[in-house]
This record gives sequence, C-alpha cells and structure tokens, in this order.
Amino acid sequence: MPIVYLGLGSNLGNRKANINAALKKLGAARITVEKTAAFLETEPVGGPAQDKFINTVAKAFTKLSPEELLTQIQTIEKSLGRVRSVKNGPRTIDIDILLYDQLKIKKANLTIPHPRMLEREFVMTPLNEIAPNMIKKMRIIKTIQNLRKELIKFRLQNQRIGFVPTMGSLHQGHLSLIRKSVKENEITVVSIFVNPLQFGPSEDFKNYPRNIKKDQSLAKQGWADIIFIPNEKEMLNSSQLTYVDVEKLTQGLCGAFRPGHFRGVTTIVAKLLNIVQPHSLYLGQKDIQQAVVIQKMTNDLNIPVNIRVCPTVREKDGLAMSSRNQYLSSAQRQEAVILYQSLQLGQQFIQAGETEVSKILRQMRERITKNSPVKIQYLACVDPVNLEPLKIINGNVLLAGAVWIGNTRLIDNINVRAISRKNK
Amino acid sequence: MPIVYLGLGSNLGNRKANINAALKKLGAARITVEKTAAFLETEPVGGPAQDKFINTVAKAFTKLSPEELLTQIQTIEKSLGRVRSVKNGPRTIDIDILLYDQLKIKKANLTIPHPRMLEREFVMTPLNEIAPNMIKKMRIIKTIQNLRKELIKFRLQNQRIGFVPTMGSLHQGHLSLIRKSVKENEITVVSIFVNPLQFGPSEDFKNYPRNIKKDQSLAKQGWADIIFIPNEKEMLNSSQLTYVDVEKLTQGLCGAFRPGHFRGVTTIVAKLLNIVQPHSLYLGQKDIQQAVVIQKMTNDLNIPVNIRVCPTVREKDGLAMSSRNQYLSSAQRQEAVILYQSLQLGQQFIQAGETEVSKILRQMRERITKNSPVKIQYLACVDPVNLEPLKIINGNVLLAGAVWIGNTRLIDNINVRAISRKNK
Repeated sequence: MPIVYLGLGSNLGNRKANINAALKKLGAARITVEKTAAFLETEPVGGPAQDKFINTVAKAFTKLSPEELLTQIQTIEKSLGRVRSVKNGPRTIDIDILLYDQLKIKKANLTIPHPRMLEREFVMTPLNEIAPNMIKKMRIIKTIQNLRKELIKFRLQNQRIGFVPTMGSLHQGHLSLIRKSVKENEITVVSIFVNPLQFGPSEDFKNYPRNIKKDQSLAKQGWADIIFIPNEKEMLNSSQLTYVDVEKLTQGLCGAFRPGHFRGVTTIVAKLLNIVQPHSLYLGQKDIQQAVVIQKMTNDLNIPVNIRVCPTVREKDGLAMSSRNQYLSSAQRQEAVILYQSLQLGQQFIQAGETEVSKILRQMRERITKNSPVKIQYLACVDPVNLEPLKIINGNVLLAGAVWIGNTRLIDNINVRAISRKNK
Repeated sequence: MPIVYLGLGSNLGNRKANINAALKKLGAARITVEKTAAFLETEPVGGPAQDKFINTVAKAFTKLSPEELLTQIQTIEKSLGRVRSVKNGPRTIDIDILLYDQLKIKKANLTIPHPRMLEREFVMTPLNEIAPNMIKKMRIIKTIQNLRKELIKFRLQNQRIGFVPTMGSLHQGHLSLIRKSVKENEITVVSIFVNPLQFGPSEDFKNYPRNIKKDQSLAKQGWADIIFIPNEKEMLNSSQLTYVDVEKLTQGLCGAFRPGHFRGVTTIVAKLLNIVQPHSLYLGQKDIQQAVVIQKMTNDLNIPVNIRVCPTVREKDGLAMSSRNQYLSSAQRQEAVILYQSLQLGQQFIQAGETEVSKILRQMRERITKNSPVKIQYLACVDPVNLEPLKIINGNVLLAGAVWIGNTRLIDNINVRAISRKNK
C-alpha cells in the first residue's frame, strides 16, 4: 500500500485538539496513520499578524490515489472549520500532502513532493523525527579525489550541481543557502573549511568556532547530498605559490581593514570551484563584498558558474546571523543589533529623499555612538555594483558597516532601492 | 567496394620508377588505384644515414580483406627487392595501409588507421592533397559561448579533450603539440589568441606575426578538431580586474626581464582552461618557464588538467622553432643558432664532469660573445623543478638563455641529465 507523509498545522482555536481531530478523521477516511511526530510550535510564515502554529507530520498508508487523497483531505479541512478567505491567514486546520511514495506530480492543484517542504522548518523537523531514512543519505567526503570521483557520475548524467562553500558553524543563514541549492539542483555540495588564507595574523583563525557534528546535522536537515570536509593539508599544499587577486573591488569596505583577506577568499574559492565544478554557487548577502568580488572573479576568469546571492537571515531583533555571534556575551548580544538599526536609519533617510551621503552617514554614526558602547570600524554608502563610495544618492545604493563589540567584529549591509523621481 | 589509402615510399635505386612499378603491380593484384598524390621528397625518419625518400599516397578500391591486402602488398614489396634487414633502413619500396574504409583494426601485424600517419608529414601532405575531405572537418569557433556549446556534447560522452593554446603563427613546434594531442584525445582544440596581457609596454605586441589562414591550414594538417579564434573583446572585457599570480617561479629567468609577463600568461591560461576545460594541456619545452609556472598554477588552484610538456622542435641547424624567427634577416638567421650551440657547450662541460656553474656559464657566455654580435640577456643554470639558480651541479639541471639579435629576442633551453657517480 502506498506510504504517504502528511503535514498538519493549526493556529486557530484549540490547536492541539484540531490536529488530533484531523488525525482521527484521516483514519475514518481510509488513511491509516501509522505514526506522528511530536507537536512543534512555530511562527507563522507570511500572511497577516496571527498566532503561532502547532505542527506535526504523520506517516500513513492509503489505497487512495493522490487525487482521491487530496479530496478527502479537503473534506476533512472543511469539516474542521477551515475557511480559505485570507491568503496565508490563520486556520483551524491545514493538511498538506508532503510525499506520496516516490511519486512526482506537478498539476495545477497538486504538486508532490510538496514544493515548499524543504524550506519549512515546521515540516522538516517533524519529518526528520519520524522518517530519518526518508531524508536522502548525505555523504561525508574528506578528499578532493573522492569528491571528484563522486561528482563525475552526476556530471556525466548532466545533473546540476549546487555548491555552498562555508567555514562551518552553520546557522539558519547557511541553511537557507543549502535549501535554495537543493531546490535548484539535483545535487548539493556543502563544503566546510576554515580557510587560513583569509585571516590576518591578528585575527580569530584559531578561535573561529568549529562544530562539525552540529554542522553535519544542519546540512542533513537541509537535504544536502554531499558534505565536503577537507583538512588543511588537503586544501593547501605547503608550497602554495598561486594566488587569485581581484583589484579595486577589494580595496574598500572590509578590504581596507583586512589586508589580504579577499586574496585569501578568492584563492580558496577558485580552488573549491575547480574541485566541485558546480553549476551554481550560493553566497549570502551578509558578506556582500565577498559576493561581489567572487562574481567579478568568476566573470573575469570565465569560470562557468551561476552566482546566487541569497538574502541575509536575521534574528528576531534584526541582528544578521553570523557564526561570530557566538562570541558575544548576553549583554553584547543586546547591543549588537545597533548596527542593523543604524543601517535601517540610513535607509529611512534615503527613502525620505535625503541625497547627501555625508549627512546620512553622520546620522547613522550617531545612532550607534550615542546609544551604545559599540565601536564603529566603518559605515559606508556605496554603489552596489562597483562598491565605490558615493557622495550623492542617485539610484540604488548599498549601506554597509562593520563594528567591534568587545573583541568581536560584526558586519552587516542592506540594499536600498532608489526612490522614484515622482516621490521626491 | 572498400576504399583504401596506401602510403608508398622509396629511397633506394630509381625511386620514382620503384613507386610507379609498385602502383602498376597493385592494379594487377586487384587493387584498383584511382588516383595518386604528387611525389614528395622528404628526409628519412630514424635509422642509419641514408638518402631522402620519394613519397606518395594512393587512393584505391579493392575487394580484398585487410589481411589479404596486407599479404598482396608484402608480395609486391618483396618482388621489388624490399629487404627487411636494418630497422628503418633504406628500401626500394615501402607500402603502408593508411586507411581501410572506416575500419579500425589493432592486431600484432596490422593496425589501421596506420598508427604513426598523423605524425608523418610525408603521409599527411599527399593525403591532404588527394582526399581533403577524408581529413575530418575542423570547426572554426570565435565565441566562448559557441565553443562551450560544442564541447559540452563531447564532455557528456566522456570523451577526452586535448588543448593546445597558441598565439598563432603556427610552426612545426605547434604542429607537434597538436599531433600529440590528437593521438591522446578524442577531441583537440587549438586556440589562437595574441594575448596583450603578456606583452610589456615596450614589447612586440603590435608587430607579433599574425597569419590566420596559414594557421588554419597547419592546424587542419595536424587533424585538430576545433580551432578557437576569439577576438580581444571576447577574451578580455574592458574591466578585467582579476589576475592569477604565481610567486617565486616567475621571478627568475625571463621573469626578471619581463615584469608582468607571467601574470599575463597565467591569467589568460586560467581563463582558457576554464573555457575549454580540457583533460590535457599541451605546452612546448621551448617555453619551459611558462610550462613550469602553468603546471604550478594548475596544481595550486586544483585545475583538473594534465600538463604535457613536449620536446622543442628545431631547425636543421638546431635553432629552436619560434614564431619570432620570422623577424630575423638572413644574416641574423645564421647567427641565431649560437644560443643553442652555447647551451650544448654547457651540456658538454657538465657531461665531462664540470660541477662549478660559474665556470660553465663563463664558457657558454664566451661561446656567444667571441663568435657573434648576438647580445646575451641571460644565461642560466637552474634547478629544473623550482628554477632556482644553482652554484654546484649535483643532479639534473636546466640550461636556459635569452639573447637579443638586433631587435629580436629569442629564448632556448635544454635539460641536462645528471651524470652518474660512476662516470665521474
């Protein structure tokens, strides 16, 4: 009998009772639930302001066809008071078909596997719990040779390879890159390598947080196919004499304060790209200068890869997720959000029509210095393409900054759209 | 009826009469000759000192099987006085089966197509004359996008791609690289691009010899599959900011006199390797520093390619073939060989047991200055792996030099094997 996995959620009325009622009704409709995951409470995604959801995933057997199953589910939703009035609005019950055996269906009213399941914590966590083997096996590879041997198979089948290079200590920001890659490619490779070349002599290479076990578990949760964990000897032979340099773009912003940093980044990323030879490379907007520099490097050296820059993932208060946030004491953690607030203040000025950059930066600076002990390394308003500092705002801009909080250096940035002439 | 192509050669007795007699006997043996190429006189290859050969290629039809054809040919050779006593010795007649329809045969006594035909001028020139369409079609491609589109097909079939990067003005040295690649790969790509990045401001970029028509004809003669001729805009966008640097190895020898030269070479070769993504890259021993630097770059950046360094091809007097030899007046052409003679002199000293490099270099220098107006730029005796200058000879060495002959700069080098302790 076909095995199906169903996602259930409720954020209206007695949430747990609604889910339990739904599970009971599934049984009555010839959908035999074998087991369910522990209930998980999560924030709503999209839609108006509303309460948190309770979620679970159920494993069930059924002789119903996918279409019959869908009809039964909709009947159950209706019987439990589900009203489809507001998009992503609150609901007494929501039942989704996640997986139906190995079937792949793409119709107007039914897509299996569920198209957004990989991105949804409230699906992946319970699904992992009751069906860890449903999640495809992730291979851990430590040598370049073995990685190439593994990837050549996929390449010869013309499968797309997505690549997420990381320095480990994965967080939700990395996970968003992995999930984007999993959605867009048949194979996703995540590398974990703390690259000594990109740390200055007085920087935190030795103390940089490392947690391979947690990293593996997060990458698996993201449905990565391969995790590549080379050691230092594997990635850098002792006589490395070759370096890749990107001029100009590496001079300003972080580059001005971290001499050699971007040379280290471009050299190691060139190496990784030659090892993995991915179709697409996934980078975070948080390290925007890095993304711009790597994009330029791949263009200039004709490295055949698409660069996908994905939005910064933030904590609830707005702090950009970063492996270095672990360094912060709880008091520092409170202060840390001031950088993002300063960037937002700059954005407000620009959107209110201010065009003089010196004025905007002064306000941004004061926002930090007057309200916190945080030390500014730089605050900048630059052209988003060539990263050159601007004096007058006349189009899209990038607001970026770096601050020291105690011994921890944090960076952040936001893109600000040009306001149209009409609104001025 | 099967079409066969036969190679005929003679360098003993009345050479033309021998070939004509052989052609007649072929007809009598049910091997109908349709046409033959003009007779071509060539130097013997290998064997003892002997006269020049007269060669031709005949197109014929026959119902004989390849084995029967071979037997008939051997009978004809014997009847015309062919004696197989000395290996590669002189012979009244030599008949080889070059091609037998599309057949591929690999037996102890018979390999079709003839295994060395691609390397033999005395086969390829007449074959080209009578059967230009037998030589597989060579594609001329001008854009990166089209080249990638063409190559992806072969890559997905797991075919090996060999790559010969050139600056055009092809000569026998390039041809030897092309033929090596054709032998070792299913697909051979030859690029022609005069790379501005590797010329200094006072160097000969503008005057560098360009002769695309002749280049195409030579590449075709070498059985290249694809000739890639991008223009400058295609290879270098106006805002190129990325460069690949190899340290140390680029400082000595030519690097000391051509600042920025190797940066230009490695950057463009990295680009070409990313465009072609070949399995093997063919480089000439003549530009040995370039080969060592590119080998190091591909190792350090994990570019997955085999580097094949092929022997320097020389004129009869020993002058290394070079596109720049075209610059020489006939008087200068006479003088030019002095560089190679100086290198050979150094080799003699080393092989005679001299170990003091300063003494060897003094002799080499004097050989040039005392006998010619040629100006030495450098003469060096270096480690063949790291290119560091040596003081004492204690193993294999590389002797290398650069000279100015009028306004023409020529380089050359030879590897000298260590003499064994016993012989000292």
